[in-house]
Amino acid sequence: MTMQRAGSGMRAAIAGASGYAGGELLRLLLAHPEIEIGALTAGSNAGTALGAHQPHLAPLADRVLLDTTAETLAGHDLVFLALPHGQSAAIAGRLGDDTLVVDCGADFRLADPAAWEHFYGGAHAGTWPYGLPELPGQRERLRGARRIAVPGCYPTAVTLAMFPALAAGLAAPDVVVVAATGTSGAGKSLKPNLLGSEVMGSVSAYGVGGVHRHTPEMEQNLGAVAGRPVTVSFTPMLAPMSRGILATCTAPAAPGLSAPALREAYEAAAKDEPFLRLLPEGQWPATSMTLGANTAALQVALDERAGRVVAVIAIDNLTKGTAGGAIQSANLALGLSEELGLPLNGVAP
Amino acid sequence: MTMQRAGSGMRAAIAGASGYAGGELLRLLLAHPEIEIGALTAGSNAGTALGAHQPHLAPLADRVLLDTTAETLAGHDLVFLALPHGQSAAIAGRLGDDTLVVDCGADFRLADPAAWEHFYGGAHAGTWPYGLPELPGQRERLRGARRIAVPGCYPTAVTLAMFPALAAGLAAPDVVVVAATGTSGAGKSLKPNLLGSEVMGSVSAYGVGGVHRHTPEMEQNLGAVAGRPVTVSFTPMLAPMSRGILATCTAPAAPGLSAPALREAYEAAAKDEPFLRLLPEGQWPATSMTLGANTAALQVALDERAGRVVAVIAIDNLTKGTAGGAIQSANLALGLSEELGLPLNGVAP
Amino acid sequence: MTMQRAGSGMRAAIAGASGYAGGELLRLLLAHPEIEIGALTAGSNAGTALGAHQPHLAPLADRVLLDTTAETLAGHDLVFLALPHGQSAAIAGRLGDDTLVVDCGADFRLADPAAWEHFYGGAHAGTWPYGLPELPGQRERLRGARRIAVPGCYPTAVTLAMFPALAAGLAAPDVVVVAATGTSGAGKSLKPNLLGSEVMGSVSAYGVGGVHRHTPEMEQNLGAVAGRPVTVSFTPMLAPMSRGILATCTAPAAPGLSAPALREAYEAAAKDEPFLRLLPEGQWPATSMTLGANTAALQVALDERAGRVVAVIAIDNLTKGTAGGAIQSANLALGLSEELGLPLNGVAP
Amino acid sequence: MTMQRAGSGMRAAIAGASGYAGGELLRLLLAHPEIEIGALTAGSNAGTALGAHQPHLAPLADRVLLDTTAETLAGHDLVFLALPHGQSAAIAGRLGDDTLVVDCGADFRLADPAAWEHFYGGAHAGTWPYGLPELPGQRERLRGARRIAVPGCYPTAVTLAMFPALAAGLAAPDVVVVAATGTSGAGKSLKPNLLGSEVMGSVSAYGVGGVHRHTPEMEQNLGAVAGRPVTVSFTPMLAPMSRGILATCTAPAAPGLSAPALREAYEAAAKDEPFLRLLPEGQWPATSMTLGANTAALQVALDERAGRVVAVIAIDNLTKGTAGGAIQSANLALGLSEELGLPLNGVAP
Repeated sequence: MTMQRAGSGMRAAIAGASGYAGGELLRLLLAHPEIEIGALTAGSNAGTALGAHQPHLAPLADRVLLDTTAETLAGHDLVFLALPHGQSAAIAGRLGDDTLVVDCGADFRLADPAAWEHFYGGAHAGTWPYGLPELPGQRERLRGARRIAVPGCYPTAVTLAMFPALAAGLAAPDVVVVAATGTSGAGKSLKPNLLGSEVMGSVSAYGVGGVHRHTPEMEQNLGAVAGRPVTVSFTPMLAPMSRGILATCTAPAAPGLSAPALREAYEAAAKDEPFLRLLPEGQWPATSMTLGANTAALQVALDERAGRVVAVIAIDNLTKGTAGGAIQSANLALGLSEELGLPLNGVAP
Repeated sequence: MTMQRAGSGMRAAIAGASGYAGGELLRLLLAHPEIEIGALTAGSNAGTALGAHQPHLAPLADRVLLDTTAETLAGHDLVFLALPHGQSAAIAGRLGDDTLVVDCGADFRLADPAAWEHFYGGAHAGTWPYGLPELPGQRERLRGARRIAVPGCYPTAVTLAMFPALAAGLAAPDVVVVAATGTSGAGKSLKPNLLGSEVMGSVSAYGVGGVHRHTPEMEQNLGAVAGRPVTVSFTPMLAPMSRGILATCTAPAAPGLSAPALREAYEAAAKDEPFLRLLPEGQWPATSMTLGANTAALQVALDERAGRVVAVIAIDNLTKGTAGGAIQSANLALGLSEELGLPLNGVAP
Repeated sequence: MTMQRAGSGMRAAIAGASGYAGGELLRLLLAHPEIEIGALTAGSNAGTALGAHQPHLAPLADRVLLDTTAETLAGHDLVFLALPHGQSAAIAGRLGDDTLVVDCGADFRLADPAAWEHFYGGAHAGTWPYGLPELPGQRERLRGARRIAVPGCYPTAVTLAMFPALAAGLAAPDVVVVAATGTSGAGKSLKPNLLGSEVMGSVSAYGVGGVHRHTPEMEQNLGAVAGRPVTVSFTPMLAPMSRGILATCTAPAAPGLSAPALREAYEAAAKDEPFLRLLPEGQWPATSMTLGANTAALQVALDERAGRVVAVIAIDNLTKGTAGGAIQSANLALGLSEELGLPLNGVAP
Repeated sequence: MTMQRAGSGMRAAIAGASGYAGGELLRLLLAHPEIEIGALTAGSNAGTALGAHQPHLAPLADRVLLDTTAETLAGHDLVFLALPHGQSAAIAGRLGDDTLVVDCGADFRLADPAAWEHFYGGAHAGTWPYGLPELPGQRERLRGARRIAVPGCYPTAVTLAMFPALAAGLAAPDVVVVAATGTSGAGKSLKPNLLGSEVMGSVSAYGVGGVHRHTPEMEQNLGAVAGRPVTVSFTPMLAPMSRGILATCTAPAAPGLSAPALREAYEAAAKDEPFLRLLPEGQWPATSMTLGANTAALQVALDERAGRVVAVIAIDNLTKGTAGGAIQSANLALGLSEELGLPLNGVAP
């Protein structure tokens, strides 16, 4: 096998390159015309070849993983951190202010220290510009940013599904979310319940009862667009697939809401967004539509009997939900076209 | 391969033996000590061997499928109908009143003709004793019955998950349900979206916005136990597995409800039920726990932040959700032990 | 949930009850009319409840796992060992000669110490009666036995597929086997390549080039029926399913072999076997036919262009390939009907 | 959702755009920098929007499918035919000699009319340049070609796996192949055995005994490189995944062959090939390595006990096995860089 493609302008380091988020960052960056891949680092996998962990990335198979330290990550134009939560602050503090640091972890997502302490425990590390350009007003805050907190995968899906209704006052601030994720959302951790034998052929619940850590992030985002506090009841499920999130989000409809008015609000919200795709009426999202793509596939309905808005959205948790979203925001921060290097089309069937 | 097992007391005919519900009825009846398998009938598959359609049922492989008519079904102690909706009434009308007729279809489930017409269209066929023994008071109605309407798979799951809360007044009559089903729930119909290539690796939504036909059945059951009208917002999903339903059901908690009081209500509801299994605290349902079994695995939580009761339940849609539930009710109707011939344990991993 | 079923005559202990083989033994024994479940033991999981490891086995959820020692296993009529290889000999040596010990591990399968040392390393523990009743002459050796070595899952499949041809001299002793297994064949070990994210949507090869430990066991079995040495080239694959083995086995056809003569030999081999099912001509095995069943589904063809016999077989690796096969042989050893407690029918779809 | 990307130099029509091969052609062409997408045609789906059939291709969702006729396909620089076999000749005959016609079907793959008639029946349509650039000498034949027969998916895998051994005389011309494919290999045909309920959780055999139509194509390719007739015994399997082929190919080793000499031959064969990736020693192919990519992942071993060469290869049946291979050859025919627009990296996990 021969090699091709030279990098160009900017160089990126990836911390956590042997994990699933790291692998997806690399897959996308290999096709990015303006970002070259620099140092690859890892924790316990340092010293081994990337090919042992990411065998699908042929051109990088022989690259040896370095230790994740400020030294190995220094000297790059941008650094992607894909680390367990709690580790990003120390690293980021030692990278210069002129380096773009994009944190795929949770450390800098929440503005409210109390919410952080309640859901994550320990001290709140701070708040960075939140990497969801579709959130009203957020795109401008990301242009030129040097620190970006990449949203969680579920909050990405839920925020994109409900912001049009809540921003327009078409639904009450009392949201119920039930979402199914593929197993890569749990990372590469070696837990018995993540073994293939356990997950294939089975859907299971976890983190039920308002305890999932992504809950306050959903409430923060939706509260910001609604202009008042929003409560989210969130139940996640593990589905027998490697990738993808399908989220069903519902809230009481505003009095007098009509189906055409609801549709119109969603059309307006989606029409200038490169990665938010409102499906034609009658077609419902499937995660396969977005596999490997940075696209979110969205549909909305008004359940007149039950008096509820129901929005359903599909994303790839590793692409739009993590690595693709990270690159989308990084493009903005670097002054590049927001869409650069990001696939629009799913790999299906 | 040699053959074994002689039948015993009663003989059952199965109409629709080449479909998924028919196959599961046969799998269970082959292990039932008191029911012998009689005529097997089909629609367009009449005249072919069962082995071409149900290759997992070795002992019946050579049985030839008859036409589904009152004549081929006559002369049995019980008849299971697993037919497309709309076909059961004509057949049942020609089977004698002393024959136990168990309809796995929708025709006789709903008491309200208006609900039937709204969701199914056409004339309402009538109402038969509803085959969910766990519903308070229902077990007695099924003893000695000669007609049984087997509940839909989703209503089975949702009713079992929410009746303890609603019967005890612990939740408001405003329920949100999001449930994932395996593809066998859609039957053997040859539709492109049911092809393996489409469903593997993907979760998709369908029937969103209050249009799924199982909605009024859920409202009927839960309304009966609550003693007042209950509204259900129901969103189904198709998951990449052959069997299983995982339903998340949530409703606003009654004022002042405590987690121990909620748990106690569920413990009381489950403790004498042979097929309703309340999991230990901290363990959440997975459909694999119930694969091939007549068991429902249930868990409940109080989300104090969002003020909601959240119940999650797993069943096998073909077993407890269809064929196993049908046999459980038939056992009662026939004066047999309710549990006879019904597996308690899932096939896992 | 209420409990039912009392045990009857004999009591069995299971060592390794928290693993996949142990779980399948328990699932089958729960439905066995003559064997009661006694002590359940484990290694590092000792002291925890079985329900944490085998959540599909509702009636045993509260049973606490004991340490695996000769003491905890003593006092039973039979003991099933489902342990990592190398551990069975020490335990078995301390169990009395009147106890039936059924070893699901590899320790006592091979007759040839040199083969053991080459493939497993270390000292050969000895040879016990081989628990494959279908092997010509073997059923008699198992009646009344007090020690049984349960065959490996792949050797079970391959031996059943090829013994009719080799015993009748219809194929040359030069067999090529390529077999796909579900992931439960690898046990519950926490390896990255067994994570759901890795195995779903992917078939992979492993143990290629004649190094898989089941190879000498296949050669031993087929050599015994052929009456001369048989060479097996064996390549295993991991398939995205929890259970099942599909093995394609091929060898050069004997000169002048006709398709009817080949079929006849297979019909003769299968006709008195309760668990060996030769499919009708034109139907090919699928693992779903045998999921959860003790049945092997077999088909054979003569490829006249290539001059080869091609036999394809499906089994459930945990049932016929491990726990079901173990109980089948135990039934013989205990003087019970060979078929007792063993499902014939797969759980499908 | 906004639209982007303008086409450039050449325009391509796709016949059969609503099928799986057509969808993959479109997914790849949407990212191809030198080929613009022109007319999209279909059979019974003509008149409907592409989005109903290929919902993962967001930018083309509104494109209406035309009838597949010479007229709708005329006026393009190149035409991809993804039609049921037997339909390509008539269409191609009416497209000018200056149009590049790339047939993804079987009609023009075989040189031997007798083999065509034996395996396909009916009259042989002819022979076009065979689109497998890796086959020795073939790359030159494809440069400037105006007609290309795209290889079958299995023959692509098997030829790439075995040509290094056979070209170098390292293996006897007596090859056994067992290969597992994802269900998309069977196309979008509405057959019961392709329903998700049937294929999930199950591996099955089909086309056993030397009857699969891809057999003579393998023999043709391998015979050409070996310089003498090669016999292939081929058994295909259907695996529970949407995409991917994993083929195990084995043949008797040449006398005296050493493992290093075998490895060297494979290294030499792969080293200048952009899409043939010989894995490092000790790593074995998985289809996930190549999902959505035009890469073949290959490994080889010498089984010294059995005296056989064993080569295992993974490809994506829709990419390298169909649409990617088609574009690779079209690139050569059009004088473009062979690698243009073709992904190297799999989408994993």
